[in-house]
Amino acid sequence: MSKNLTSRDQDYSKWYNELVVKADLAENSAVRGCMVIKPYGFAIWEKMQAQLDIMFKETGHQNAYFPLFVPKSLFEAEEKNAEGFAKECAVVTHYRLQNDTENPGKLRVDPKAKLEEELVVRPTSEAIIWNTYKGWIQSYRDLPLLINQWANVVRWEMRTRLFLRTAEFLWQEGHTAHETRKEAMSEAELMNNVYAKFAENFMAMPVVKGLKTESERFAGAEETFCIEGLMQDGKALQAGTSHFLGQNFAKAFDVKFTNREGKQDYVWATSWGVSTRLMGALIMTHSDDKGLVLPPKLAPNQVVIVPIFKSEEQLEEISEVVEGIVNDLKSQGVSVKFDNRTTFRPGAKFAQHELQGVPLRIAIGPKDLENGTLELARRDTLTKSIVKLSEIVATVIDSLDQIQNELFQKALKYRDNHITEVNDFDEFKKILETKNGFISAHWDGSSETENKIKDMTKATIRCIPLDNKVENGRCVLTGRPSTQRVLFAKAY
Amino acid sequence: MSKNLTSRDQDYSKWYNELVVKADLAENSAVRGCMVIKPYGFAIWEKMQAQLDIMFKETGHQNAYFPLFVPKSLFEAEEKNAEGFAKECAVVTHYRLQNDTENPGKLRVDPKAKLEEELVVRPTSEAIIWNTYKGWIQSYRDLPLLINQWANVVRWEMRTRLFLRTAEFLWQEGHTAHETRKEAMSEAELMNNVYAKFAENFMAMPVVKGLKTESERFAGAEETFCIEGLMQDGKALQAGTSHFLGQNFAKAFDVKFTNREGKQDYVWATSWGVSTRLMGALIMTHSDDKGLVLPPKLAPNQVVIVPIFKSEEQLEEISEVVEGIVNDLKSQGVSVKFDNRTTFRPGAKFAQHELQGVPLRIAIGPKDLENGTLELARRDTLTKSIVKLSEIVATVIDSLDQIQNELFQKALKYRDNHITEVNDFDEFKKILETKNGFISAHWDGSSETENKIKDMTKATIRCIPLDNKVENGRCVLTGRPSTQRVLFAKAY
Repeated sequence: MSKNLTSRDQDYSKWYNELVVKADLAENSAVRGCMVIKPYGFAIWEKMQAQLDIMFKETGHQNAYFPLFVPKSLFEAEEKNAEGFAKECAVVTHYRLQNDTENPGKLRVDPKAKLEEELVVRPTSEAIIWNTYKGWIQSYRDLPLLINQWANVVRWEMRTRLFLRTAEFLWQEGHTAHETRKEAMSEAELMNNVYAKFAENFMAMPVVKGLKTESERFAGAEETFCIEGLMQDGKALQAGTSHFLGQNFAKAFDVKFTNREGKQDYVWATSWGVSTRLMGALIMTHSDDKGLVLPPKLAPNQVVIVPIFKSEEQLEEISEVVEGIVNDLKSQGVSVKFDNRTTFRPGAKFAQHELQGVPLRIAIGPKDLENGTLELARRDTLTKSIVKLSEIVATVIDSLDQIQNELFQKALKYRDNHITEVNDFDEFKKILETKNGFISAHWDGSSETENKIKDMTKATIRCIPLDNKVENGRCVLTGRPSTQRVLFAKAY
Repeated sequence: MSKNLTSRDQDYSKWYNELVVKADLAENSAVRGCMVIKPYGFAIWEKMQAQLDIMFKETGHQNAYFPLFVPKSLFEAEEKNAEGFAKECAVVTHYRLQNDTENPGKLRVDPKAKLEEELVVRPTSEAIIWNTYKGWIQSYRDLPLLINQWANVVRWEMRTRLFLRTAEFLWQEGHTAHETRKEAMSEAELMNNVYAKFAENFMAMPVVKGLKTESERFAGAEETFCIEGLMQDGKALQAGTSHFLGQNFAKAFDVKFTNREGKQDYVWATSWGVSTRLMGALIMTHSDDKGLVLPPKLAPNQVVIVPIFKSEEQLEEISEVVEGIVNDLKSQGVSVKFDNRTTFRPGAKFAQHELQGVPLRIAIGPKDLENGTLELARRDTLTKSIVKLSEIVATVIDSLDQIQNELFQKALKYRDNHITEVNDFDEFKKILETKNGFISAHWDGSSETENKIKDMTKATIRCIPLDNKVENGRCVLTGRPSTQRVLFAKAY
């Protein structure tokens, strides 16, 4: 494992790519644009999944599983959605391989095994799910239907980057059905709030909650809620979206129900999702030039203990003391790893755990045993302190809390310092070139203006913040009247 | 929900199909051979997953994730494996759809978006994983590599049945790499033992641990361990397999390591998996003509409480008492649901929970409040008893233990009664036609004989039991000498 990362200042993008690979999070695979999520990276994703799953169930949702494939005829039923995803679909056309008679030992597609109807590998599951819901919903008694699915999806992206944009990714997709527009709208906002809470309380990543503009909305949605984070290079990252789908899918798949007045009506829908993209957001929010920095709530190992020893006897003595600490920490719900490998020296272990972002490192050697002390090192601040053995459990618990809070506060301060109010277009461009970050500016509400700004600066409207105040102003580009500011940024 | 199931005696296969759908476990989808796992069914699968995941981690395994797609050139690298799965592969040939100019509003495959190399949707992941391991393994220090993946896989089966055989299914696949043949063999047997423990202690399903014959082995394996269950119709069901892969995949993908003597050697491999097929096994092992019967350890709701009331006032009084019971049970780790829906009558609720196999049902009405009692009903035995309110928590906990044990004992008795020692071929055929179940018979060890017996009777060798005793005898078909009995059965 070569130790030195490219620094963020030098090349942020290169720093990210190196970090993901060197910290053993993920790597590119033999399949174009598809990644392998390595055990350490997957352990972080599992922690995210577990927490999100709890939050989904607390808000009344159940998990289910729908097919990987969507028959083409279903896929094309909701026109806007189909149009939005058609250009990046992996398509299954055959169901058998045969021996390639011209190349012994090789296989080829069996031309006789062509499917009558092509199958699209799901880029998202609205079509197959709403086709299923048709059979599940007859009356208002069957509503609301609150279902989530953990799944893999495929979008044939041309430019891919580990976690941030991959042809296959892992995600969850909630798909809910409701009696009324109002109820569906509340659900979409509720789940966006769940995402925001998760981002802030677990990922320690501050987010802006907002609405997407028409041109940034999910294909087939009437309204898209989103949470937007800000990375350390001043680029925004869309971390989660929650869509109010109106009756679009109900109409496309003819899903009607008998309402409380005994009349037939189309069902109202939402869908919402977060993906392994969150891993990219997590990495880019906190990590530094020495490697990954993880918030304790999502760290596979919150504490690692490294013994410093010269003889087997010393290791034995140390191990005895460590065993007690490990048990005490575990009983308090702290995940801790005793790194007693004899194939690596302490220095190499320190470097690995630093690179992999373990929040707290304890080092313990013969002198510590004599003195009844330990060395405790924080990954985020890179500070060390000497702690009494008798106080280690309490200190660890306090420190983990502190790290979680301070990581959030630090990211919040950075984010808040990078929301710049701008009132004319020259300043807009200047800020983008120099300071970067979110630009809070007036916009005339037209897609035309939005596109022009995008073409000129690469900045898009990340969202119309939900907590926006009404403020009369003039569009930063056209000078037309506007009643509120929106957030522009370059984005991942 | 129509109440009456076809009985098992009448038509076992129809009973199964009806039960899966009526108990809300799964249903067929719009995609040929693919199922939708409904929330109730998925909740059972989640309980299985959670327990298996714990057992994998306890035995030192970590989770990771590998791509859904396998490039054809990798797929064909291990010849036997490729040959075994080539005939049932879904193949992605294109990555884009376009507007169908001849059919406005419809889409068609874009001929310009043909992949240079076709992608196979993984039927199993040895190929893509061993191609990845090549980069991860250099030295014995990198071994053992103990990795598991939870994933969906696709095998284009011609005849499908919900859970038992579906084109797409969910599973876990362990893929491990070792320094020595011996260590890999131990791993394969260890994981087969983990499966057996899970089957017996959680699914309450007795299994025979054994080895597969050459013709029943996994394509590419040198030895396949398996666990075999016996369903109530006397047919066997392969519930899990664990393969010793020798150095086949290491050679196919050139995965060498520097061993402890400093020499280059090929790595030794195992793979092992269980799938949503276990759902089918669980259903068929315990359920009866009234519906699903679930062992408490895998029941999403172990206890359901149904209030019997005529007025809102009564419901309120009952709810107050129930709230206390629910809290007490939950604090003891019992999962309990208070079914206080006002849209259904108690009779309908009873029927639903019976059909869905909730292990214990508590009914509580105004008279119970007066008497300080409750009615407790067991799903497995369909017996009812009156329990004092003060004793309900202890009684529930005892009853759940009892049900779990008695379901296993009942299934074990059935299974043991359906292992018949047979010494001539007429008897073999007669037993298959009348009693069914496992037939323990001598076999001459040749694939030829095995195939003949299969052709004549549809019975296959399910396994060579691991605890077999040496016993001289003569092959039940050919009369050739044999040193042990093997288990034949018709199988799912």
